[in-house]
Amino acid sequence: MTRVLYSLCGRDESRPFSPHCWKISMALAHKGLDYVERPYPFTAIPTIEEGFSKTVPILRDGDRLVRDSFEIALYLDEAYQNLPTLFGGEGGKSLSRFVESFSQMIIHMPVTRMAILHIHDMLDEPDQAYFRRSRLERLGKPIEEVAAESEAERLAFASKLEPVRRTLHFQPYLGGDTPLFADYILFGALQWMRVTAGPPPLAQDDSVMQWFERCLDLHGGLGRRVTAA
Amino acid sequence: MTRVLYSLCGRDESRPFSPHCWKISMALAHKGLDYVERPYPFTAIPTIEEGFSKTVPILRDGDRLVRDSFEIALYLDEAYQNLPTLFGGEGGKSLSRFVESFSQMIIHMPVTRMAILHIHDMLDEPDQAYFRRSRLERLGKPIEEVAAESEAERLAFASKLEPVRRTLHFQPYLGGDTPLFADYILFGALQWMRVTAGPPPLAQDDSVMQWFERCLDLHGGLGRRVTAA
Repeated sequence: MTRVLYSLCGRDESRPFSPHCWKISMALAHKGLDYVERPYPFTAIPTIEEGFSKTVPILRDGDRLVRDSFEIALYLDEAYQNLPTLFGGEGGKSLSRFVESFSQMIIHMPVTRMAILHIHDMLDEPDQAYFRRSRLERLGKPIEEVAAESEAERLAFASKLEPVRRTLHFQPYLGGDTPLFADYILFGALQWMRVTAGPPPLAQDDSVMQWFERCLDLHGGLGRRVTAA
Repeated sequence: MTRVLYSLCGRDESRPFSPHCWKISMALAHKGLDYVERPYPFTAIPTIEEGFSKTVPILRDGDRLVRDSFEIALYLDEAYQNLPTLFGGEGGKSLSRFVESFSQMIIHMPVTRMAILHIHDMLDEPDQAYFRRSRLERLGKPIEEVAAESEAERLAFASKLEPVRRTLHFQPYLGGDTPLFADYILFGALQWMRVTAGPPPLAQDDSVMQWFERCLDLHGGLGRRVTAA
């Protein structure tokens, strides 16, 4: 086995939670490629592969090292063209960037507010200190203040997903009849929430929740293997 | 000439303004297909092609009639496979639905609030009465009340486009290096604004505004041919 996905964990290695790493777990499974997942805590990431990247996911594929979830997905689709496509052509590649941007700009901040204290509590002590410091720098306030908006975010969360809900009126996946990397992008955000803070605050009969449940079932229930917080 | 695009106008036939019809003008030009545009006022739409559709765009292509902008784009790509693609493959088709849904759910209501009185004023009298009545039914309040939120929408408009702005950090068009139907979908919304109420409230150095200007220049300046209100 020479294929390794370096991902992110807290105290418990069996509960990887990074949205970007989940995108790649799903992408590898979609391609049917074997891999070993090696989750690292935040402060150990600089030791991976001699400091190859400041962030995970990192993929080692034989001699090849690739970083950044979108870059890894592009690499996998290019390197394994005979296995199921992650993009469905050039248009799909470009428009997956829009799905990524929607997820980053509209969904990630609400999930951060709802999950930040839970993530903190999942970490070992050196990582807790790092997490507090880095999030203060990035978000401009202590994690407790970020989490103060958690309840408001729970109430507003379903409405943020309106463009996804309307899309699912036409097709079962963002990618069409079957999932593409675009689905795994958004799945990653909701799975990050699920593993750290519990199921996303969506009604069971919400088509977005039903899509998420379908994604949890994909690839032998890969996503469901890690239970909800 | 057997190719006709039935579109929407007010008093002035030379200023078609429907976002959905602009998507198809751009799509036809993208394919390099000749066509005649026949703009109709709202209340005359039921007379087009013996009442074929309650809404425009309608495309007549020889013996074929097609309605609904997305259906027309799919039809054009299927019927003229040797001409430049509007979707860039199956993934692009599916993800264009997500761009359509983003445009409908996030951009159309703000444009409606900013443009509704201007649209009313562009119509002939029988259409003004129809417009008032149909918008009261659809929006639950008189058009003047809808427009009362116009200034707030102007201030918030740039922020709604954040996912587009981030995408344009990676590529010049939503479709990648060159535009696809996904670009025309969003272009239609901003062109609707431009033709009825004036340029979208975005800074000149905003990458979304720069993308919009590039779109206005496409296909021999097809979009720029109709001046801003």
